[in-house]
Amino acid sequence: MEKRYYPYEDFLADTNALAQKIDWEFDTIIAIARGGLSLGHLFGEYYNIREVYSINTIGYEDTVKLEQVKVFNVPELSGAKNVLIVDDIVDSGDTMIEVLKVLHQAYPTVNFKTASLFYKKSAKIVPNWYVQEADRWIEFFWSVDLNRKK
Amino acid sequence: MEKRYYPYEDFLADTNALAQKIDWEFDTIIAIARGGLSLGHLFGEYYNIREVYSINTIGYEDTVKLEQVKVFNVPELSGAKNVLIVDDIVDSGDTMIEVLKVLHQAYPTVNFKTASLFYKKSAKIVPNWYVQEADRWIEFFWSVDLNRKK
Repeated sequence: MEKRYYPYEDFLADTNALAQKIDWEFDTIIAIARGGLSLGHLFGEYYNIREVYSINTIGYEDTVKLEQVKVFNVPELSGAKNVLIVDDIVDSGDTMIEVLKVLHQAYPTVNFKTASLFYKKSAKIVPNWYVQEADRWIEFFWSVDLNRKK
Repeated sequence: MEKRYYPYEDFLADTNALAQKIDWEFDTIIAIARGGLSLGHLFGEYYNIREVYSINTIGYEDTVKLEQVKVFNVPELSGAKNVLIVDDIVDSGDTMIEVLKVLHQAYPTVNFKTASLFYKKSAKIVPNWYVQEADRWIEFFWSVDLNRKK
């Protein structure tokens, strides 16, 4: 598949575009690790929210896609009312669907909404807010910049 | 205090320098939120570690320094043996000391080591690995780049 390198500058521009789209007040950010961590970081600073948590998933074992995404490291959300879940890309949608399911079950009274930089048309779920449609494999700067220095 | 803007390019160079210094094998990364999240993200990708967790602290209420740093959102570390704790800066050292204390108490058999981009000579604790000594207030890109786009 054709690849598109996604540098920090594009990430910054899209993170800004995403912030302009989000017309909702939230008190907590959950970043899906690892892809959503940098976005969660910048959003936490931008919105002045200290409650930036990570949640972890495994969708692949080595290169084999698992039947079901495993969600772990579910954060403790006492006091949270409106939680924005962020990720870099909603691809198949399996990860976001499973994260929402686990969080809804654990915290039935909390409101969850979702935001991502990229979204694929073929995904099973549309995030509440996204910036770009992905038509290629995205090489995010956080995945490749450091390895290039090796 | 004089300020130093710290752009993504410097962060990338220092993250690489930090990786070169770390002569230890670890299976888990804990990023102190928010400051350590971007570093945790790049390290997770670089070391191919999916177990990247966040831990949260409050050292200030508004602008008033608290007597003690509060640590919350302690990750579940079942299966972890060697855990690298990362942060952007070890300033007074209070945050890192309290995080280590809480983690040691919760997981007495796990090995914890610490790494940061910056370290202040006046800090009460020296991280196991760091890159630069901080002599000024650091304006990290993740704190200011997005706000500048407002």
